[in-house]
Amino acid sequence: MRIVQVPLGQRSYAIKVGTGLLAGLGAECARLKLGCRCAVITDANAGRHFAGLAVKSLSASGFETALVTFPAGEESKRLAVVEKCHDQLAAHRLERKSFIVALGGGVVGDLAGFVAATYLRGLPFVQVPTTLLAQVDSSVGGKTGVNLKAGKNLVGAFYQPRLVLCDLDAFKTLPRREYRSGLAEVIKYGIIYDAELFTRLERDLPKLLKRDPATLGEIVARCCEIKAAVVEQDETESGLRAILNFGHTIGHAIENSSGYGKFLHGEAIAIGQVAAAQLSVKRLDLPERDAVRIGKLFAQAGLPVTLALNAIRRKKLLAAMLLDKKVSGGEVKFVLAKKIGQAVWGQPVPAVELQQALDAISA
Amino acid sequence: MRIVQVPLGQRSYAIKVGTGLLAGLGAECARLKLGCRCAVITDANAGRHFAGLAVKSLSASGFETALVTFPAGEESKRLAVVEKCHDQLAAHRLERKSFIVALGGGVVGDLAGFVAATYLRGLPFVQVPTTLLAQVDSSVGGKTGVNLKAGKNLVGAFYQPRLVLCDLDAFKTLPRREYRSGLAEVIKYGIIYDAELFTRLERDLPKLLKRDPATLGEIVARCCEIKAAVVEQDETESGLRAILNFGHTIGHAIENSSGYGKFLHGEAIAIGQVAAAQLSVKRLDLPERDAVRIGKLFAQAGLPVTLALNAIRRKKLLAAMLLDKKVSGGEVKFVLAKKIGQAVWGQPVPAVELQQALDAISA
Repeated sequence: MRIVQVPLGQRSYAIKVGTGLLAGLGAECARLKLGCRCAVITDANAGRHFAGLAVKSLSASGFETALVTFPAGEESKRLAVVEKCHDQLAAHRLERKSFIVALGGGVVGDLAGFVAATYLRGLPFVQVPTTLLAQVDSSVGGKTGVNLKAGKNLVGAFYQPRLVLCDLDAFKTLPRREYRSGLAEVIKYGIIYDAELFTRLERDLPKLLKRDPATLGEIVARCCEIKAAVVEQDETESGLRAILNFGHTIGHAIENSSGYGKFLHGEAIAIGQVAAAQLSVKRLDLPERDAVRIGKLFAQAGLPVTLALNAIRRKKLLAAMLLDKKVSGGEVKFVLAKKIGQAVWGQPVPAVELQQALDAISA
Repeated sequence: MRIVQVPLGQRSYAIKVGTGLLAGLGAECARLKLGCRCAVITDANAGRHFAGLAVKSLSASGFETALVTFPAGEESKRLAVVEKCHDQLAAHRLERKSFIVALGGGVVGDLAGFVAATYLRGLPFVQVPTTLLAQVDSSVGGKTGVNLKAGKNLVGAFYQPRLVLCDLDAFKTLPRREYRSGLAEVIKYGIIYDAELFTRLERDLPKLLKRDPATLGEIVARCCEIKAAVVEQDETESGLRAILNFGHTIGHAIENSSGYGKFLHGEAIAIGQVAAAQLSVKRLDLPERDAVRIGKLFAQAGLPVTLALNAIRRKKLLAAMLLDKKVSGGEVKFVLAKKIGQAVWGQPVPAVELQQALDAISA
């Protein structure tokens, strides 16, 4: 097992990465010295595979455990579902010292984390991410939230978990498309922060695609280390943390303007990152050959790198971008790469170059 | 104008108390150096009286100001209304540096504060409380939130405003019943923290009931000082802050079990405080004559001190108490008074004494 510390003062916590961790969930929670009552919040998918073992482990450690399940899918990330979860926590008489276990992928972590952040003005919670994307990205760093009709993650809270348990065994049942979607965030860490990781991914992608546990353990832990280092320096995204959004301005707009569910998050940000690489060539002199390497790695990971864009879709995409949380003073700011391994945030992009970048990703 | 500082490190802010402050809202906000766009969130009641002047003042200071109005009443304090507000903030393209003005009574402050806490994971906000209850209590200290079917304020966040403007002119249009409801919180500060204030209230109640501006300015500022002192020592209610809930465990249960709207908050906690005083006599040797003074002051303020309780209502009341946020380990903990001017929290109360206290307040 690998342990990554997220050092945030009183809100510090550990990320544990390894195999067979879910069976030890109860013992891990007992070590945190929380209340004797808890709720596992999960969706129908993750629940089917993992809820039995999670509840068994918690019960064996003496916790009175309620199971709260909501329908799988991004469509569940809304306040009406949050309220249904709250209602069930009230029915199970959770108290201020009770805790929440978020068991599932990114949607579960975002939603259950927001439920935890807001029930009784905040209950402790433990993240048990079961997808690659959630393990390397959404379960670390304390961003929780839900969507509005107007856009993704427009509502939420910064709220840190007490512990993150990344059980690599969860990938055994993860559909191929979901798994590959997670690789888009893995590759992102190479681009924005760690050229060595990027080179390793170019070399070891076949092993990763085979879900080799040894390689996965190292890569997942490395991604968590990078995210922890960034979040440590800027917990509430007033600066540096924005680099984690490389490819996300266009990516979120793709997800939002094409209707949730058509693209997985990782697929949308793969395209977004290819576009951001194009903008980086124009704006920051990212070498053209690095933009090519970036596009190639996403393609080899089985991720989309282009988008069918007619005039109407392009207009919707641009409108969605203006609602992005990174908009400031009415101007969309981008995260761009100076080179592979180094990103900068807050980069304005002239409309004409944005159009050119969209041309470059148009199928 | 009186200024009370709430010293919470980076989250420190000022409470300004005086007459004619609403006209200066725009200038005050300009001093905070926030973004150029804002939204005033208010309800139909407060909006009718104050929104025009608020929007005019903000616009005159150069802010692009949107007005978001929701129906008045405790029934609006739910997530569906929060989401409607979010949708309107998105429609007005509020950004991370934009800010929210919460203009109204306790319901507006709680709801708009929670909207501000959660939109884009947190926008700055300014409280402009327009009722006595909101000025002395709910607008100070950063508690925001909404209700669930299961209970009041079960959902929310600790989220501090950047500024609180208490304009005493707002009381000119405040209905008598609402105004008296606010006096229940004023009297509470005397009981839990300041025997001198309590004695002054016994003496100056007639002036207060006439809404004498000079008396009001002093009393409102003193209540804010007490609340600020308590919140400074315990921002997230891990200890001392609980004393602010004197009378609230039974009070909230009265509000909840009798259907929101039947009792105003101040009316419910007046009864709750009379019951808590009875419990204090039993558990902490509060002198019987002080319990009498407490009951008498609430009655002189025109507040209810008894409750019609048949067997069914009593059962509902007790069930509602078990959902209180102050429940720990399945046991309801009370805030009780050792003497007038000093309260202690976390006091267990045997069921039989709770029943006796309910007998004492039964009409």
